[in-house]
Amino acid sequence: MTNPIQISRRQMLGATAGLIAAAGLKPTLASAQQAAPAAGAAKTMPAYVSWKNADDFIIHTPRTIETKRSAIGTSVITPSNRLFIRNNLPEPTVAQIGDVNAWKVSVEGVGKPQTFTVSDLKSMGFEVLATVLQCSGNGRGFFPGKLSGTQWQTGAAGCVMWAGVPVRDLVKSLGGVSKGMVYMTGTGGEVLPAGIDPNAVIVERSMPLVAMQDAILAWEMNGEPLSLAHGGPLRLIAPGYSGVNNIKYIKRLAFTTEQTQAAIQQTGYRLSPLGQKGGPSFPAVWTMDAKSWVTTPVPNNGPVNAGMVQITGVAMGGVEDVARVDVSVDGGKNWQKARLTGPDLGKFAWRQFVFATNLKAGTYDVACRVTTLGGKKQDAETTINNGGFLNSGWVAHKVQINVV
Amino acid sequence: MTNPIQISRRQMLGATAGLIAAAGLKPTLASAQQAAPAAGAAKTMPAYVSWKNADDFIIHTPRTIETKRSAIGTSVITPSNRLFIRNNLPEPTVAQIGDVNAWKVSVEGVGKPQTFTVSDLKSMGFEVLATVLQCSGNGRGFFPGKLSGTQWQTGAAGCVMWAGVPVRDLVKSLGGVSKGMVYMTGTGGEVLPAGIDPNAVIVERSMPLVAMQDAILAWEMNGEPLSLAHGGPLRLIAPGYSGVNNIKYIKRLAFTTEQTQAAIQQTGYRLSPLGQKGGPSFPAVWTMDAKSWVTTPVPNNGPVNAGMVQITGVAMGGVEDVARVDVSVDGGKNWQKARLTGPDLGKFAWRQFVFATNLKAGTYDVACRVTTLGGKKQDAETTINNGGFLNSGWVAHKVQINVV
Repeated sequence: MTNPIQISRRQMLGATAGLIAAAGLKPTLASAQQAAPAAGAAKTMPAYVSWKNADDFIIHTPRTIETKRSAIGTSVITPSNRLFIRNNLPEPTVAQIGDVNAWKVSVEGVGKPQTFTVSDLKSMGFEVLATVLQCSGNGRGFFPGKLSGTQWQTGAAGCVMWAGVPVRDLVKSLGGVSKGMVYMTGTGGEVLPAGIDPNAVIVERSMPLVAMQDAILAWEMNGEPLSLAHGGPLRLIAPGYSGVNNIKYIKRLAFTTEQTQAAIQQTGYRLSPLGQKGGPSFPAVWTMDAKSWVTTPVPNNGPVNAGMVQITGVAMGGVEDVARVDVSVDGGKNWQKARLTGPDLGKFAWRQFVFATNLKAGTYDVACRVTTLGGKKQDAETTINNGGFLNSGWVAHKVQINVV
Repeated sequence: MTNPIQISRRQMLGATAGLIAAAGLKPTLASAQQAAPAAGAAKTMPAYVSWKNADDFIIHTPRTIETKRSAIGTSVITPSNRLFIRNNLPEPTVAQIGDVNAWKVSVEGVGKPQTFTVSDLKSMGFEVLATVLQCSGNGRGFFPGKLSGTQWQTGAAGCVMWAGVPVRDLVKSLGGVSKGMVYMTGTGGEVLPAGIDPNAVIVERSMPLVAMQDAILAWEMNGEPLSLAHGGPLRLIAPGYSGVNNIKYIKRLAFTTEQTQAAIQQTGYRLSPLGQKGGPSFPAVWTMDAKSWVTTPVPNNGPVNAGMVQITGVAMGGVEDVARVDVSVDGGKNWQKARLTGPDLGKFAWRQFVFATNLKAGTYDVACRVTTLGGKKQDAETTINNGGFLNSGWVAHKVQINVV
C-alpha cells in the first residue's frame, strides 16, 4: 500500500479491519465494509435540489443524498446547499403547495382546535434555534453486515438554524393540551398514492408529549424561507429527535392519547433486534445519542503532509450540551482532548472541534469521541438493530501522512 | 394616499418627509429622498455572482449590489447567496487565482518575514467568528442631498461566519511585529490596469495596529470555501472595521510605520466635510458605529393586517456588544424595548430583534435604535461627510396597516 490516499474507501476500511483485528480492538471499524458508495452512484442532483452542487454529495438515490464528509466546513452552521436530503415520499409539487403563506396546518387535541395559515403563525411571534438535523439511519453503513436501507456513512446530518413559532406558545394560545393526551403527532402534507391504505405510506409520527416544549413550527431555515426540498413551507422541528420526527410540509399537529397507526410509526423506525421486524413493542426511534466524527483530514481530499495537522470534526450531545471531545490517531488506544471551536449554539446544535498534532509520515487511524455535560460518553459501538437506526458508535478512518 | 403599500419608496419617503416637517422632527427622514433605486436598475446578476438570486437584490451596478431589506431573515447569519457585493476593482479571474490552496500571501514588518500559501495557513490552526460585513457607504442614500457614490440604503451589510488563522498567532510565529510599526496594511490581489500609477487604483488599506488582535486571514465563509465574489481564496477580516478594510484576495499583510500611499487610503474613505475632498488630515474610515434598522414589515412585501404585528430587524454594536434595541411606530416620539432573538455570536456580529405590537389600521412611521453594553446610543443622525460614509443615524420608514 504505497499511496492509500488514492485507494478506495472499501480497500481502506478493509485494511483497517485487519489492523484492528490484529490489535484485538472493538470491531466497529472492521464492520464498516459497506460504507463505500455504490460504484454506479449518480453524478447529478435531481431537479428539486438542482441548486445544490453534486460535488458535495454522495447521491445514493434521488431522495437519499448524503453530504460528503469533506464538505462539512468549520463554521458550525451547515449551509443549505450542503445539507443532506432524505425524503420518505415524493415531495409535493410547487403547484400542490401553492402560496406558501396560505399553507394550512390544523392544531388538534387542544382546548380550542384551530387551523392556521403560515401567515397567521408568522403574526404570533417566533424563536430562532440551531439543531442537528440527522437522518435516523445516519451511520447505518458502519453497522456490521449489510443492513437493508441506505448505506449512510456520516453525512446524513447537518446543523442548521430555524425560525418559527414555538409549539408551546401556540398550544397555550389555544387553551393548552387536552386532558389525557400523551403524544404529539405530526402529519406530513405529501400527496398519497391512490388505492393504498393511507396508514401504509403516510408520513405521520408521534413523539412523547414533552417534545412540544422545545418544538417549533418553522418557516425559515438558515435565514431563507424554508425550501420545498427541506420541508417548506412549514416543518415541525423537534430538537433532539432524529430526522423522521421532524415532519415536512406539516398539515396537522395533534395531541393524542395513542401513537399514530401509520406503519412508519408502528412497524417502521423501531429498535428491533437483528433479523426481527419492527413492531410497537420495540422502542421507537426518537431522541438522538451523543455522537461525533472527524471531517478532516479524509482520504481523497488532497495529500496531507507531515508536520502540524489540524484534525477537525463535529460533535453533538443529542439532548445534552457537549462538554468535551477527545481525538485518537491510533484507532482508540490513546485519546487527547480537542479544542472546541466556534460559537456555542445550544445543546441541540453541534459543536465543532480541532485537535492540532504533529504527525510524521505514516498511516494513522483517526477517530474522535464526545462526552456530554451530563457525563454521557459516546458509545464505543451501538448495539445493532434490524433497521440500522441511531448508530452513534465511533468509527476510525485511515489517514496517510506523506513525507513533505 | 389610499394604498401606500403600492406606492414607490420615493413617493412614500416624500410623504413621510412632509409629516416629519409638520411635526418638527429631526430631518433624517426628510432627507432620504434619494433612497429609491434607479428606475432602470438591472434585473439579472452579473456572471461572477450568478449563483445569487436577483430577486433578493437591488443591482445598482455590476459591482454594487445591495440586499433588499426584506431579504434579511431572522436567523442571524446572512446566507452567502443573499450577501451584498461591493468591489472597488474588477475581481481576478478564476484563471488568475489558480489553485486556491496555492494562493500566496507575504507577511512583512515582522521579525521573520515569510510568504505563506493558503495550505500553509490551514495547517497553522483557525478561529471561527461572526462579523457584520458592512460597506463603508451603507446608508449613503439616507444622507440629505444626493452625495456622489452608490445610493445604498440598508442592504450593503450582512452578518457572516468566517474561519481562518488569527493574525496575532501568525505574527507571533514570525517573531512578532517589528519595532516602531503603527499600522496593519493589507494589499488586495486584484490585477491592476497597465499604464496607471498603481497607487491611484490599488486596493491597499492601513488600520491601527490594534486591529490585528481580532483580525483573521479567512479562507471559509458560512461553512464553504470563500468564494471569489467575496474575496476568496483568502481575505483579511478586520472585525469591527467597515468593508473596505477587509481586503479581498489578500496578497500582502504588512506592519508599517506609515499608512499606505494608495489613493484609497490617502484621499478616499476619509471623513471630510461636505464639499471638501478627502485627505490625510481627515479621519480615516475605520471602525463602524452602533446601528440598527427594521427589516420587516416593509412596503412591497405584502399587505400587513391590523392586529399583532411582529416588527423585526438587525442591530449591531460596531465594536461593542448590543445591550438593547428600542422600536418606535410614531417616527421616534415614543420608544419601546424590543426582544433580542437568536444566539449571541459576539460583539462583532449583529443581534436580531422583534417587537410585537397590536396595531390598528393606519399609517405608522417605524424605526429602531440600538444601545450598546457600553452605553453608546445609536446616532439620531450622523454628521454628513463628503463621501457619505458610515451613516449610522436611525431612519423611520412608513408602514401601512390594513383593515383585516
